[in-house]
Order: sequence, then C-alpha cells, then structure tokens
Amino acid sequence: MGEELNVSSLLEEVRAKRPLVHNITNVVVTNVVANALLAIGASPVMAYAVEEVADMARIAGALALNMGTLDDRVVAAMRTAGEAANAAGVPVVFDPVGVGATPYRNDTASRILADIRLAVLRGNHGEIGFLLNAGGAVKGVDSAGASDALPRAMKAWAKAHGTVVVATGETDYVTDGDTVYALKNGHPLLAAITGSGCQATGVIGAFCGALPSDADAAAHAKACVAALTCFNVAGEVAAERAAGPGTFQAALFDALYHLDPQTVAARARVTRLEVAV
Amino acid sequence: MGEELNVSSLLEEVRAKRPLVHNITNVVVTNVVANALLAIGASPVMAYAVEEVADMARIAGALALNMGTLDDRVVAAMRTAGEAANAAGVPVVFDPVGVGATPYRNDTASRILADIRLAVLRGNHGEIGFLLNAGGAVKGVDSAGASDALPRAMKAWAKAHGTVVVATGETDYVTDGDTVYALKNGHPLLAAITGSGCQATGVIGAFCGALPSDADAAAHAKACVAALTCFNVAGEVAAERAAGPGTFQAALFDALYHLDPQTVAARARVTRLEVAV
Amino acid sequence: MGEELNVSSLLEEVRAKRPLVHNITNVVVTNVVANALLAIGASPVMAYAVEEVADMARIAGALALNMGTLDDRVVAAMRTAGEAANAAGVPVVFDPVGVGATPYRNDTASRILADIRLAVLRGNHGEIGFLLNAGGAVKGVDSAGASDALPRAMKAWAKAHGTVVVATGETDYVTDGDTVYALKNGHPLLAAITGSGCQATGVIGAFCGALPSDADAAAHAKACVAALTCFNVAGEVAAERAAGPGTFQAALFDALYHLDPQTVAARARVTRLEVAV
Repeated sequence: MGEELNVSSLLEEVRAKRPLVHNITNVVVTNVVANALLAIGASPVMAYAVEEVADMARIAGALALNMGTLDDRVVAAMRTAGEAANAAGVPVVFDPVGVGATPYRNDTASRILADIRLAVLRGNHGEIGFLLNAGGAVKGVDSAGASDALPRAMKAWAKAHGTVVVATGETDYVTDGDTVYALKNGHPLLAAITGSGCQATGVIGAFCGALPSDADAAAHAKACVAALTCFNVAGEVAAERAAGPGTFQAALFDALYHLDPQTVAARARVTRLEVAV
Repeated sequence: MGEELNVSSLLEEVRAKRPLVHNITNVVVTNVVANALLAIGASPVMAYAVEEVADMARIAGALALNMGTLDDRVVAAMRTAGEAANAAGVPVVFDPVGVGATPYRNDTASRILADIRLAVLRGNHGEIGFLLNAGGAVKGVDSAGASDALPRAMKAWAKAHGTVVVATGETDYVTDGDTVYALKNGHPLLAAITGSGCQATGVIGAFCGALPSDADAAAHAKACVAALTCFNVAGEVAAERAAGPGTFQAALFDALYHLDPQTVAARARVTRLEVAV
Repeated sequence: MGEELNVSSLLEEVRAKRPLVHNITNVVVTNVVANALLAIGASPVMAYAVEEVADMARIAGALALNMGTLDDRVVAAMRTAGEAANAAGVPVVFDPVGVGATPYRNDTASRILADIRLAVLRGNHGEIGFLLNAGGAVKGVDSAGASDALPRAMKAWAKAHGTVVVATGETDYVTDGDTVYALKNGHPLLAAITGSGCQATGVIGAFCGALPSDADAAAHAKACVAALTCFNVAGEVAAERAAGPGTFQAALFDALYHLDPQTVAARARVTRLEVAV
C-alpha cells in the first residue's frame, strides 16, 4: 500500500519544494511547530497581524490554523487569512484545539467551519467526535475518549463538505469521504509532550503545500496519510533514543530531520477501512 | 517528616486524579509549563481570552496566574478567571513575576492581591520580599537578594490573608501562617534555565488541584511542600544527567515523568522553622 | 586579530556585568532567546506592555527589538521602548525579521529605522539586502539569497546612519561604516532550528549591554563581532555533540553556558574586508 500512497515520494516532494507553511497557531507550541516544520524540510512562518496575514497566506504553500490559545484578534486573523487563502487557492488546514471545552471555542470552530473552505480538518478523537456529533468527550485540550461511530461520521462529513477529516489517537483516521484510512504508527510518548498534535497539523500543512495547486480531496487525504505516517514513524524512532518526554521532543526533531523514505516505507502501518455511511 | 507530609502520596494523587490546571502564564514559558505539568501527570490547559477564561477556570482543578509578560488583556483575563475560580471554589495560585521591576507590575500585583482570594502566592525571595515589604530586591525578573526577615513577614502575611506564601531560592520557604517549612532540595542549574519558577508554580497548581475541594490552608501548604520537593528532586536527578542548561531542561521533564515516590522520600530535605511573629 | 578585538575579554565582561537585556521579541522564540541569554551569562527580561516597556528599557543594559510576530500592540511597544532607550542612552538592537515578506513588515521596519536611533541593525543577508536596496530576496522569514553588493551597501548605510549593520549568513558581515568584518564561524545546523538569528540578536544585546555607556559605533561593532563569534563557536561545539536539530538546540545552550575564552580565541575566524564605498 506504501507504493500506491507514495508516502516516500511525498516526503521527497516536501524536501524538494520546501513549501512555505503559514501558521496561525497557539502560544504554547509556536516554537515546536516551527522546529518540526524545519526538521521535515518545510519553511515555516508565523504571522498573526490582521495587517499582514492575507499577504502572507496568499504567498504560502499552505495555511495552518490552530485555535489552541484564542482571543478575538487571533480569531479575526484566522478568518482574514483563511479568506485570502481560499481566494488564492492555498489549502487550509484547521486544528480545532480544545473544542468542546468552552462555548467560545465551540462558537469559533463553528464559524470557521462555516466561513472558510478547508482542505483538511484535523483534531484528536475527542475534538472531531464533538464537532461531528459522533460522541467523544473533551477535558481541557486533551481527548478523553471516542466512539466507534467516529470513522462513519468522519466519512459522511468529509463527503458532504469536500474536506478531508483527520482524527488522531491510538489509531489515526483519515478520510476524503470516499476512502477511510486507518494509521497505526506512533508511540505513547507523543501524548506525553505538549503540542504533538499541533506539530502534526503543521506537518500536514507541509505535505499539502507540496502538492500541485489543483490537488483534490483524494490527493489531500494521501498527503495527510503521508504526513502523519512520517511524523509518527519519526516518533517511533525518537522513542528508541529518548529517556522520557524531554529528550523525546529533541529526538523527535532529530528523527524528522534524518527521516529517510526507506525507514518510512518499512515501518508504515496504513490500511483501508470499510466504512458504510 | 516525609510520612507526615505525605509527599509521596500527594504525588500519587496527582497522577491518579490528573487534575486540569488552567494556566494564564507568560509567553516565555508556556511550552515548558505545559510540558512540566504533563510530565508530573497533570493535564495542562492554557486559555487567555476573556470570552472563555471563566468557563475554563470553573472546570479546572486549579488556576495558575503568572504575570511574566503582562498586558491589559492578560490582566483582564487573570481577573475574570480568578473571580470565576473563587466563585467555584477552585484554588488559585499567583506568581507575581518581576514585581518590583516596574510600576505596572506593582499595580497589577496589588490589584490581584486585593481582588482575588488566593490559595497560594509564590515568588522568588526578591519578589515576595518586595511584595511583603520584607526587603529583597528585583533586577528585571531575577531575584537579587532577600533578607532574614523574609520567613517572618511571610508567616504574618499568610496568617492575615489565609493564603499560603511560598518564596523560592536556595532555601524555599512555605507557610500557611502557622507552620513555616524550609526546603533545601534543588540544583543550581534550575537558575540557569528560564521559567523554572514558572514551572514550579504550575506544579504547585497540580498538587493543589489534586486535593479535596474543601482543603484548607494547612493542606495547601503541604501540597506546596510536596510539589516543590518533587520538582526540586527532579532537578537534582536531571542535573546528574545533564551537560549544561539545555540538556538539563530536557532531563528535567524526563525526571518529572519518571519520578517515583521512593526517590522523593529518600532525597527530601524538609524541616520546620521556628518563626516568631 | 582576536587580541585586538578582545572577543575573549568581552565575553568575560558579559559574565561579570550580567547585563539586563530587555527583549521585545516574537512568540516563536521567546523561550530560546531567554535561555540563550541566561546561558551566555546575561539577565534576560521580556516585557511587552506599553504600560511598562519604557520603565523596563530605561533600566536595561540593552534593548533588543525583534519584529518576527508583529501586531499593532507590539509595534507600539517597540516604539515606546525604543524612545525611552534612546532618551536614557541604552543601546538598541533591531532585528527586522521577515522584512520584504509583507508590506506591513516593510512599513514597520521603515518607521523604526526612521524614528529610533539604533546601535545595531541585524538581519540575515536577505533582510539586510532588502532594507538597504542591495538585492537579496526574502521567502517568508528565511533568507533566500544575497548579492555581492551587500557589504558595500552595509558600509555606506552604517556610515550615513551611525548604526552598526550586521548581516548573518554563511559569512557574517559586521560594519560600523569604517571597518567591515567578515566572520566565518558557525555550523549548518544553526539554520535547521528556528530562532538562531533571534538568539544571536539577543546575544548581541548582551555584549552591547556590557560596554561602557559612552561606547561608540566602533565599540558596538566589536561587541557584535565578539557576540556572533561566541554564538557561532558555541554552535560548532554543539554540532559535535548533536544528533540533529533537536539535540543541537539543547547542546547550543550547554555550549554557550560552558564557553571559555580560550576555545573562542582558538576557533575564531574573523577577518577585515577591504570594501570601497
């Protein structure tokens, strides 16, 4: 399946094209998202001012929006950047961090889903389950469970909206509304550091940003599968060198930096799920 | 004394309850505070918007306020969150970073002390000395000295306000107004990284958040003693594996993650001070 | 040349004086800039509120302004702090991160150059080339090239404005308008982490902050040469201990912390360029 999905060749595309990924992300993870993007071979830029986000989004290969630490200025910036990206055909990835935890996050996520055309919606099982009314619970910004109904709800929503949906957890699900992928790579230490999901969102932006500009949902789904598989395989490699979560984060950057297509191909655990909607 | 203070059992409580700690902290340390909380076994959330901080504070196990990088929005958020936490019985920990350095910080700290009921006030010797008019000097956000009058002033202020006071330095002092604890664990490398005090504040939030909801000042003081002892013992362990401050920060997260009650009990250096007020 | 430039003795000055460096920097790098400054022996403070930046800048040894993640509040704070520093004779270092990428960044940089008297202007080759109309291109916040005309334009601009100009890249150029220094230390991993340029800007602030208050442009240029040489030599040492960019950042703090004058003197690669203007 690795061949068909081209995980390895997509990684090589990222490094060859070095896509500019414009991130509007939260203050907890800005540094690690930038470092993860540099390590995988992309060019990160963080820009937040309403005065410039449209200009930056237009020249980016992808725009990654993350609502981990919102305020009204960040919300306005995400909207302005998202509209500019939509107008310019730049793919938008949205990470609804902590949705379900407060009405403000719920309202913000709803408005972005309504107003911005998303290439990819990525959250953990709890966040995606909450957004899609497929069960799941949220405690703060950590996922606290999911339900078997999740891949089904994801597939239906993706089909209806033309947006790839990604829910990460012990198994990661990716769907474009037609195919549902189940990804089994990763390591428990990824849940022991802050911002691993946000880093994954950034890396998804990099892989989407390396696609041709006319990429469709099926192509974006494959980019998500490749991005998550690369990120999670790097997590596996890093865990072998780490003595805990602190050395793991450093080793994760090292592993992303040195990640070679052969290692990814050898370790990838990607399957297709049969999901009736 | 370890038995009486239950340092080990409080650590086990944190890991069992995994309290949600709502942090309104500064932009320098958000990432490391979140990682320190994850490593010790708590669930960190950072939320700053006035639109949501009350909702988040109400569902948290503890609220940790840190004024390291203030602006008027952060100040408003701290006030709103603090009032919501007070109304809901959620313990509030306040870290007056850099008080004494500028009038704005002094005014902000004064207003929080006046308006929010604090379970714990934690600063370094210089900050607490300044706030309590017990001598001490502040240079930027680093403590630049303390005076012998400090534990005395702390005990009197704690008694008068029903707030546990914590002053960290080469010796850490903790008092609920009746008992004064002196803590001697730690390592000089903790002063060579940014945000070790802020991380300690977060960890204090985790330990307070794991207490029963009717915990009194004496219980909060014991939680502070346990939190600081765990944090500082982890610092000692980390220092043995570090080659300098960079590898020390990573090793500190590793050590917090792997910290076992036996190591804490064996290394704890906690005594009671006789302090006449 | 090391003797004449006093790289080693300037490092010792920084550690002896422990200058307070007030940073108004971007949200991506606040943590690593603070840690780099602590590691080299300075005392970092981050303060952003218009209510306090003038107070903080006045008591600082140096003010470092970095426009990596602007908004109107940061711009106002930089202006207020810069004016206070100018009035108090505190040297100001300005890092125009990402200038050339958006009109907002161009406007902001222009206004700071017009309104604040700078001791040092530091950017990468692309940023300085753009600002000085000496060619160079900017892609997001990464430099994407420079031109041979760069040192010439830098020398002329420095002479005209009484400001030291620093352009970092594979070769770093430093000029006070009379002398042009070319620095060849460093390691490719410095470009593989986010914020190495921002950290260098902070360290330049530390070295300028350790100078006598009547230091002239020639002295500030020597401080820049010393700061960059120390930072880049630390990068070389760190690279020998790193397995990739993650472990490199940690090792860089370790190396800055342990950097000794002998190592710097032995490794320094500083020459003077003959540049006709």
